[in-house]
Amino acid sequence: MKRVLLSHGGGGEQSWKLIENVFLKNLKGEKLKRLEDSTPVDVGNRIAITTDCFTVSPLFFKGGDIGKLSVAGTVNDLSVMGAKPMYMTVGFIIEEGFPIEKLERIVKSMSDEAEKAGIEIVAGDTKVVPSGSADGLFISASGVGEVLYGGISSSSIKPGDAVIVSGTIGDHGACIMASREGFDMDIELESDCASLWSLIEPLLESGIHIHAMRDPTRGGLSAILYEWANSSRVSFTIDEEAIPVKESVLGLCEFLGIEPYHLASEGRVVIAVRGEDAQRAINILRKHPLGEGASLIGEAIEPSGSPKVIVRTKIGTERILDPPSGELLPRIC
Amino acid sequence: MKRVLLSHGGGGEQSWKLIENVFLKNLKGEKLKRLEDSTPVDVGNRIAITTDCFTVSPLFFKGGDIGKLSVAGTVNDLSVMGAKPMYMTVGFIIEEGFPIEKLERIVKSMSDEAEKAGIEIVAGDTKVVPSGSADGLFISASGVGEVLYGGISSSSIKPGDAVIVSGTIGDHGACIMASREGFDMDIELESDCASLWSLIEPLLESGIHIHAMRDPTRGGLSAILYEWANSSRVSFTIDEEAIPVKESVLGLCEFLGIEPYHLASEGRVVIAVRGEDAQRAINILRKHPLGEGASLIGEAIEPSGSPKVIVRTKIGTERILDPPSGELLPRIC
Repeated sequence: MKRVLLSHGGGGEQSWKLIENVFLKNLKGEKLKRLEDSTPVDVGNRIAITTDCFTVSPLFFKGGDIGKLSVAGTVNDLSVMGAKPMYMTVGFIIEEGFPIEKLERIVKSMSDEAEKAGIEIVAGDTKVVPSGSADGLFISASGVGEVLYGGISSSSIKPGDAVIVSGTIGDHGACIMASREGFDMDIELESDCASLWSLIEPLLESGIHIHAMRDPTRGGLSAILYEWANSSRVSFTIDEEAIPVKESVLGLCEFLGIEPYHLASEGRVVIAVRGEDAQRAINILRKHPLGEGASLIGEAIEPSGSPKVIVRTKIGTERILDPPSGELLPRIC
Repeated sequence: MKRVLLSHGGGGEQSWKLIENVFLKNLKGEKLKRLEDSTPVDVGNRIAITTDCFTVSPLFFKGGDIGKLSVAGTVNDLSVMGAKPMYMTVGFIIEEGFPIEKLERIVKSMSDEAEKAGIEIVAGDTKVVPSGSADGLFISASGVGEVLYGGISSSSIKPGDAVIVSGTIGDHGACIMASREGFDMDIELESDCASLWSLIEPLLESGIHIHAMRDPTRGGLSAILYEWANSSRVSFTIDEEAIPVKESVLGLCEFLGIEPYHLASEGRVVIAVRGEDAQRAINILRKHPLGEGASLIGEAIEPSGSPKVIVRTKIGTERILDPPSGELLPRIC
């Protein structure tokens, strides 16, 4: 089996070969092939910029892999700010000895997802570190999008705003957790990893004013609602019964004693709109395969004391949702 | 001593504290403080995009550290394409247990260099991986610049073009090599790590048409000349006597039996211009403290056979320079 060697990271002949045989072979796009120190591209006057490091373990999971995840994560971070994803860059930190075949699968999956999502990979970097200096492979990804719809902000939420999710929550987190713990469950646990621009664009085009929008990755729904609560100085009530969670995910959560609201999704979006726009927004989302499970899950209210998130349970009681805290799940994304 | 914990990467309360106490405290700029998923910024219609992963070991070295290096590397990759550095993003992959005090020194140094170089850090990401999954800390950095001067390209070099370097070569590589091998040399070995926009801008403004420009990082001067040779289908002759190399760097190279032309610089630039523009370009460079050692080192010629780089030695003979090959020095940048 061919493996990545330190010489592949040296910047010389072997590096050139790795770039040609693995990266340029599998990644499309003329701009990348220029191999200059930076890549000129055309954009509108207002762009959005984002970056993420991907350290997920395992690298391959049901529903995706680190390559697909790095594209979807980048596309989604731009989309939720109303920016049409245009260009992205990727950086690889690879441990010496990593199998070339796996690297190629990851690059191919990245390329496929980028093509599907309509984002172009225009620049990249590869570093190889000695064995023991990294665990397998890390990817960094940065994205540039054209801001078509401004004004979306974590601090724009008003009491009375509706909170909508585009589908079941926690699928990615549950999938990674189960595959890492080696659970051999009969039930299906698959990551929801997906690029969301095609789901979000019609909503932006509809004229509905979106106050805030986020993809619930690390820290899950809970992290987003607490960040919004603190930025907008509102509290939230959410209805346990209305929040879509797959039976299999709920089962895992009950087994491990964790909240599904703390689990990461990688292909979902949480949206705050004026209460009167909620149903229209849901109708638009549901027309898209990735938004079929769109649901109204709660609303923003005037805070009494410090902003908090209140869960109305299925049995009719109320409890305060904990903000995510502690180790949760390292290397989830 | 406070250390980075896995919980700092969980996306919850501890993550928010680390971001506030280490990153936002030390990094300037209002845009970063918005903490949205992506950051809107204004630009011209044509931008250049670049990305790099930084894995240098040791993290702190004479003349800089991984934080300063990540900014200078980003600024330089934009500058050499004629793009004014505007915005950058940074991603940290931190091993659990990494001392917070060292992290803060790195972030501070990054902030200082960004301010000096006139580039704004607008977005970031932090991942913490379990102990044993990474060696200390890696940084990914991406940059966006406005393309003010187009047409610079590795494939634009013509026979008769002059090759200029802005100063001594190999200082960074020699410094890292010496500090890693534990050489206790009397002689001074210091990295040349520096942001080069202020050196390059006057040259771009002068109206001299720059055919190609690169910063000689991994693989050194040799890698650039071979990449240029292959892209432009030219050969190069370079004069050993004319290439500025510090005595201390030469000493280390002789001791270890390596070529200074393969050693990385992180604050130098190699430029190809028409032969008749060479002296004017050198005069402009020499006016800047970072360009005091600017020298004409050789020229592009018609290739006979496959493109190659020929060194005219000090004793008057000629030899073919090897392209960089093999492991060279892992984790140099």
